[in-house]
Amino acid sequence: MVASGWRMESGATVLEEGGVQFRVWAPKSKAASVLILSGKAAGTVPMQPEGKGYHSVTVPGAMDGDRYLFQLESGKTYPDPFSRYQPNGVHEPSQVVDPGLFHWMDEGWQGIPLEEYRIYEIHVGTFTREGTFEAVIEHLDYLVELGVSAIELMPVSQCPGSRNWGYDGVYHFAPQHSYGGPDGLRRLVNACHKKGLAVLLDVVYNHFGPEGCYLDEFGPYFTEKYRTPWGRAVNLDGADSDPVLDYFLSNAGYWINEFHFDGLRLDAVDWIFDQTPKPLLRRLADEVHRQRERLGRGIYLFAENDTNDVRLINSPEKCGFGLDAQWCDNFHHALRALLTGETTGYYEDFGQFAQLQKAFSEAFVYTGEYSRYRRRRHGGPTERHPGFQFVVFSQNHDQVGNRKCGDRLSATLPLNQLLLAASAVILSPYLPLLFMGEEYGERAPFHYFIDHGDPELVDMVRKGKHEEHASGVCEGEIPDPAAEETFLESKVSVATPKEGEQAVILEFYKKLFSLRASLPALRVFQRDAMEVFGLPEQKVLFLR
Amino acid sequence: MVASGWRMESGATVLEEGGVQFRVWAPKSKAASVLILSGKAAGTVPMQPEGKGYHSVTVPGAMDGDRYLFQLESGKTYPDPFSRYQPNGVHEPSQVVDPGLFHWMDEGWQGIPLEEYRIYEIHVGTFTREGTFEAVIEHLDYLVELGVSAIELMPVSQCPGSRNWGYDGVYHFAPQHSYGGPDGLRRLVNACHKKGLAVLLDVVYNHFGPEGCYLDEFGPYFTEKYRTPWGRAVNLDGADSDPVLDYFLSNAGYWINEFHFDGLRLDAVDWIFDQTPKPLLRRLADEVHRQRERLGRGIYLFAENDTNDVRLINSPEKCGFGLDAQWCDNFHHALRALLTGETTGYYEDFGQFAQLQKAFSEAFVYTGEYSRYRRRRHGGPTERHPGFQFVVFSQNHDQVGNRKCGDRLSATLPLNQLLLAASAVILSPYLPLLFMGEEYGERAPFHYFIDHGDPELVDMVRKGKHEEHASGVCEGEIPDPAAEETFLESKVSVATPKEGEQAVILEFYKKLFSLRASLPALRVFQRDAMEVFGLPEQKVLFLR
Repeated sequence: MVASGWRMESGATVLEEGGVQFRVWAPKSKAASVLILSGKAAGTVPMQPEGKGYHSVTVPGAMDGDRYLFQLESGKTYPDPFSRYQPNGVHEPSQVVDPGLFHWMDEGWQGIPLEEYRIYEIHVGTFTREGTFEAVIEHLDYLVELGVSAIELMPVSQCPGSRNWGYDGVYHFAPQHSYGGPDGLRRLVNACHKKGLAVLLDVVYNHFGPEGCYLDEFGPYFTEKYRTPWGRAVNLDGADSDPVLDYFLSNAGYWINEFHFDGLRLDAVDWIFDQTPKPLLRRLADEVHRQRERLGRGIYLFAENDTNDVRLINSPEKCGFGLDAQWCDNFHHALRALLTGETTGYYEDFGQFAQLQKAFSEAFVYTGEYSRYRRRRHGGPTERHPGFQFVVFSQNHDQVGNRKCGDRLSATLPLNQLLLAASAVILSPYLPLLFMGEEYGERAPFHYFIDHGDPELVDMVRKGKHEEHASGVCEGEIPDPAAEETFLESKVSVATPKEGEQAVILEFYKKLFSLRASLPALRVFQRDAMEVFGLPEQKVLFLR
Repeated sequence: MVASGWRMESGATVLEEGGVQFRVWAPKSKAASVLILSGKAAGTVPMQPEGKGYHSVTVPGAMDGDRYLFQLESGKTYPDPFSRYQPNGVHEPSQVVDPGLFHWMDEGWQGIPLEEYRIYEIHVGTFTREGTFEAVIEHLDYLVELGVSAIELMPVSQCPGSRNWGYDGVYHFAPQHSYGGPDGLRRLVNACHKKGLAVLLDVVYNHFGPEGCYLDEFGPYFTEKYRTPWGRAVNLDGADSDPVLDYFLSNAGYWINEFHFDGLRLDAVDWIFDQTPKPLLRRLADEVHRQRERLGRGIYLFAENDTNDVRLINSPEKCGFGLDAQWCDNFHHALRALLTGETTGYYEDFGQFAQLQKAFSEAFVYTGEYSRYRRRRHGGPTERHPGFQFVVFSQNHDQVGNRKCGDRLSATLPLNQLLLAASAVILSPYLPLLFMGEEYGERAPFHYFIDHGDPELVDMVRKGKHEEHASGVCEGEIPDPAAEETFLESKVSVATPKEGEQAVILEFYKKLFSLRASLPALRVFQRDAMEVFGLPEQKVLFLR
């Protein structure tokens, strides 16, 4: 059993008194069974209907490590939507996991205050040669020495195949098998906490991946009312949506309680549609903050969004959603467009010195102005929110990986400009985020890669990337997202000792973090206590 | 010219110095012309591109009464999306209207305070034998004598054909030709104000009707991102959405300035999708309240919604939308289910005495509880909003007309229960609304009727009604929505002198309104200053 006060209502729960309770929401199915495929309880056990579409049964002989599937009325079998582990991928059986067996050694860990977050974004598969959670651990000293205070893992939900950015996850409770599954992930978080590092997880609550998702067989997880760029929207406000909301609320609680995560980064929340008076985002904030109170440690919710809307971080008393912080893409765009002079895609809205100045003073550059790229007014004011409610960066997985050639700033910018970019982010009145390898000017690209099993789907993804990048700026060919090589090319070389320019950059990043930590003036987040002025001619910006 | 300080940016504007400015947003078209079909300026006049998709031209010789069409790059011609008058229906030319020619006689009209609203809902086509705006005027004394303080017109936007509830409107600036067009409507509002009656207009900003809508030829008025039950959703947050927002903002300003309306009832706002930080509803509230300040008279926005969500009426400071009041369907359902014992459709969620008690004390009955009908949690709390921010009724066009046989309460309830229903509404701590004819127990049904020109569409509507009412409680056949008879059967007999039971009911309604006006205890809208308790056995409810 896991720490008291937390229990997942669905899935396979190992009971304190022995045995396992299996529970599944399958309102479309009048009957359901659990097929235990290994261990001493192997066999088919019919489940009891509980009402409202839930089926459950307790199997006394079942235990940690047993493989199982759910069988629905149709006779067909599927993995558990709440599976904690998919040892053989998305199409194969789930495995019972007893989270109580892990020996946590982070007692006394209190988390870190929000304003102390200095975030390092990691894609587990490409961060090390091994591409596992375990292998990340070896580099934690390096990260501490660098001066960051938190790592943020790109999504780890079980995806099709063994290579993926993570946004094709279909089992949101099952850490990717090829990364080392739940135990590997727990070891990583445990090790981070021992080093004083917080750990954030990127979670995708706006859609499910295109392969291995059998949720339709269970219940109305999806709606036709809204559409996302990645397929059907999740059903959060239609008939039978309460259990769908519970799926995501449980998921947030699960990562916090069973994995000791310090916070979640909610992917693209503007594609989470919920018209009810208390929408999912608001419920998530309530749930996570309740866990924060209960556990007595700092736990935060960060939102990625594209709408420049502070209702996300407004308090519930102001009828906001009450999230803790949000990503600020505008800061990135303003900075990058000035540094690189790019004018394609969304960069056409940027490139003026005054915009960077506004990004420094108001976080959002578009606060209601007309955007040529969007062909409409864009954004709203940031009001009086302090700077630590905004996360800024000069690079991240999207801003690198969604480019035609996956090229980082270091591929084109001279040293002095790379250092300028670093300074702008790390000395900003916001929370800085780096993308792995940025700290030494990694030259490897970060490509888009997948490992889907369905050839038609692979073709669709290839085609999609070609359309997306039809007018891309990079010369070379678009790398094949499905090729292992594309994935391997994206690996960073954190482990290699740095020489020459890379050593200079690394040293500079360390200095910046040390400066940020030591200068009180750099810890003023009340934006109205700060003055920003600039000399456009000289491209100099002053903050005081 | 109309009163200073208001001018519509698009459509045909008669200029003070003579001539007409024609302006149209048609970003899909590189060129556009206006075809003037009558009058001394008859001819084709090319328009000048203004940028951002607008085309405009001033035609010196054009004037009020001229018929015109816009010709787009394709060579095809269409009526004006901002047409003030469609004298021959949705497919035919628009007509230039000079709103300054009407002689208003309501100087000094201040509107009425929100808490004084006692609303009488009218469908213009079936309220009188003539079915015109003009014919309504004859009955205003009757309404004043009855004791209501405002009439609310079901939508009057130009619809296909001559018979329609109004929700198939496609020219939202053009009052229905078969009702008497813009001049008829102005005469009606003018007459109301002279009698001391306020006038509200039901407006449909969530969709356009299925026939005669040529907006696609002009620009991206629609989006595929969201779907409504009535077809494509309006594009309020995608590319090129600013002019679409302006269309609706102009529309609200138009009814207030050019027609002196005292407020708007926004139809089904839960199907208006806008994810931007300052969504349409918020902008509408701002615009209407700006007009209120400017004109110095009471002007209000009422929302119909199905979500039990006070964010609609929360102030912008609380990041609400700032609308003035909202309809409260829950009150109706709780009351009706108790009176009639109905348990089908959404009435399955109602029928308990305690629910009516809650409706009296909290307005919403579902404030987060599970709804069996919706198969999910429903609603949120009403917080401390005063009672005059909720509109209640025992009947309205939907609650009568969406029934299989369009039967009113008077078709089945005995006299004493009709009087009880009236008392519950009129003596409630909310704003009461009656549906025309209710005040004397009208026996005529209120059917659903249309007059579309497209036979396929007519078949679809017929089929839809049959599906909708497959399990309806009424015996008889479903009346044919397209038959004129169905429309004629729905006419009320306000003009006929009342005898017997009808006279008793009418007298009772008058007494109730007079009681509401004279008893201070009935004007306490602060819900926490009120105590509601009931004796479920005796079905008695006390308010104090």
